[in-house]
Amino acid sequence: MNLLPAQDLRDLGVELFQACGAPAAEAALVADHLVEASLMGIDSHGVVRYVMYVEHCLDGTIQPGAAARVVDGRGQVAVVDCGMNFGQVGAQHMTDLVREDARAGGIAFAVSLRCHHVGRLGAWPQKLAEAGLFGLSVANSHRHGHFVVPWGGREGRLATNPLAWAAPTGGDPLLLDMSTSMVPEGRIRTALHAGERLPEGRILSGDGRPTVDPADFYGPGEGPPAGAILPFGGDLGYRGFGLGLLVEVLGATIAGEPLAEPDDGRYINGFGILAIDPAALSGSGDRFRELTGELRDYVRGSAPAPGFDEVLMPGECEFRTLRERRREGIPLPGESRRLIAEVAEQVGVRVPW
Amino acid sequence: MNLLPAQDLRDLGVELFQACGAPAAEAALVADHLVEASLMGIDSHGVVRYVMYVEHCLDGTIQPGAAARVVDGRGQVAVVDCGMNFGQVGAQHMTDLVREDARAGGIAFAVSLRCHHVGRLGAWPQKLAEAGLFGLSVANSHRHGHFVVPWGGREGRLATNPLAWAAPTGGDPLLLDMSTSMVPEGRIRTALHAGERLPEGRILSGDGRPTVDPADFYGPGEGPPAGAILPFGGDLGYRGFGLGLLVEVLGATIAGEPLAEPDDGRYINGFGILAIDPAALSGSGDRFRELTGELRDYVRGSAPAPGFDEVLMPGECEFRTLRERRREGIPLPGESRRLIAEVAEQVGVRVPW
Repeated sequence: MNLLPAQDLRDLGVELFQACGAPAAEAALVADHLVEASLMGIDSHGVVRYVMYVEHCLDGTIQPGAAARVVDGRGQVAVVDCGMNFGQVGAQHMTDLVREDARAGGIAFAVSLRCHHVGRLGAWPQKLAEAGLFGLSVANSHRHGHFVVPWGGREGRLATNPLAWAAPTGGDPLLLDMSTSMVPEGRIRTALHAGERLPEGRILSGDGRPTVDPADFYGPGEGPPAGAILPFGGDLGYRGFGLGLLVEVLGATIAGEPLAEPDDGRYINGFGILAIDPAALSGSGDRFRELTGELRDYVRGSAPAPGFDEVLMPGECEFRTLRERRREGIPLPGESRRLIAEVAEQVGVRVPW
Repeated sequence: MNLLPAQDLRDLGVELFQACGAPAAEAALVADHLVEASLMGIDSHGVVRYVMYVEHCLDGTIQPGAAARVVDGRGQVAVVDCGMNFGQVGAQHMTDLVREDARAGGIAFAVSLRCHHVGRLGAWPQKLAEAGLFGLSVANSHRHGHFVVPWGGREGRLATNPLAWAAPTGGDPLLLDMSTSMVPEGRIRTALHAGERLPEGRILSGDGRPTVDPADFYGPGEGPPAGAILPFGGDLGYRGFGLGLLVEVLGATIAGEPLAEPDDGRYINGFGILAIDPAALSGSGDRFRELTGELRDYVRGSAPAPGFDEVLMPGECEFRTLRERRREGIPLPGESRRLIAEVAEQVGVRVPW
């Protein structure tokens, strides 16, 4: 597979989103975000999303240029109406807001209404960590994505509800970005197309049986999947279920948002973000960075387990991939190129391949 | 096993802690906390802790009556020196603080210094939920308790680092209280004494091999355990590791607290607690309760999976046990009674059996 330079993919994204009516700065923000996800190896949330985003601009789901506005909240908490602009525009607005509010008052939280797809969830606390703050974010999804069963249940009631947190160190931030389910739906689809089986304990078939066959998850028809995804944790899956509910509460319920009906178009992600300024607690952000660095060195100092070469901190693998792909380029499978070229043609943009 | 009335155990606790020099209100607070844990079926954090707490009063580790004081922080965040009083006294002080600060400014966070054992971690966000707020708490432990390996490592670098969250509903709150490791150390000891094996994938022996034998964890000698506990998540254990680090950062690092040396006596738990007032976000706490209730009903409406009778929400099992044990009494094994009677005799208190 030929590798594409990040800059070419970034330029393409900017052109595509501008062709959809996005102001230049917003087009750049969204393209930068998706290219960075691809650089970090999180391809499911990378430039392949150009396709869905352009389609949603064309069908009116995304409203390029719509302003994000604080519509409720007082003190250090806010409800932000993201106006169904690109989710990254709303999430960036909310991240800036909680960063400044946390600098002023030590801590701040914001939760979205009418937010489209926020992309790579870890990007947002990462931005806070790059500014010296602690950050935590969550994202739920509208009911159309409720593939994940509650612990002890066989019918989907939550989305894969990821959570992410980040903290600054002297070097790369600590950055965890995880689903509260055993597997994101995108990975099941990839396995289906590749004719592969999933590891045990990930999914249920339409009749509630454990299975490793992606086809059992999707079922025979064209409609929504017949099966379900298990909550994170295996035989301790009540914990993943409880974390999934935490995401639901902080990403949607606390905004006063009732459970969405399937496909009512009110939002794609319910997004919540928390910032804490360590300098407000112990007098100095440098002190926090120093201590997280000590923690990292202590933890990495553990001898590796059999089968491992070293202990990696959360996010370390992604930051290594980022540096490698910046040098060498981003792999983009033929099918992704074809789909991107298709939507590019619809908006009159030429692809660089 | 004879059941003991909660009231008798509560009276015993109050007498014990007063005999150790605790003011009456603090003795009652600690006894109430431990009896409630026993009532909820969390026996490892219940009245059996009378033993350790009295011993720590007698050896000077616990300083009954010491004041908790805010020593750092500004705006909505605070560092609280708990003075090595009973951890429950410090945690209650911090919980009251974040509740009132969150009511004023929407959100608040506090982290401890010099805090003894905070007991059942879920008790603190539960108190916030009972006051209509969202609560989240974390607790790390000093390095003596670093049994949990990082993902890919074979040497302990974190404690079992639990986290807990709660939210009000019309009925019992939603309440998750979980370890970020596969198993708490107390459960391994129970299995050792009972001659039982653990499920697969919980622990490592001293030479880093997976094992199900608790004796492999403790090793042959009298010193600290030779083996280690795996982070929560099985083959996705990098997630549990990342959650354990989250607890470390929010429970200790962010207070400006360096990694404790083993047994330096600076603290038992590093405790962090976050409160958000939903009424500050969407205008009304009743609205939040209504929506969490809707969420609960929707989730519980899932058909049960094979092998389950119903879907239970986080905490539901514990609240059922609470009601049952309030009626019928608390089971207390002979060995626990003997140990409690021993410390009671040391401080001149008669036990009710």
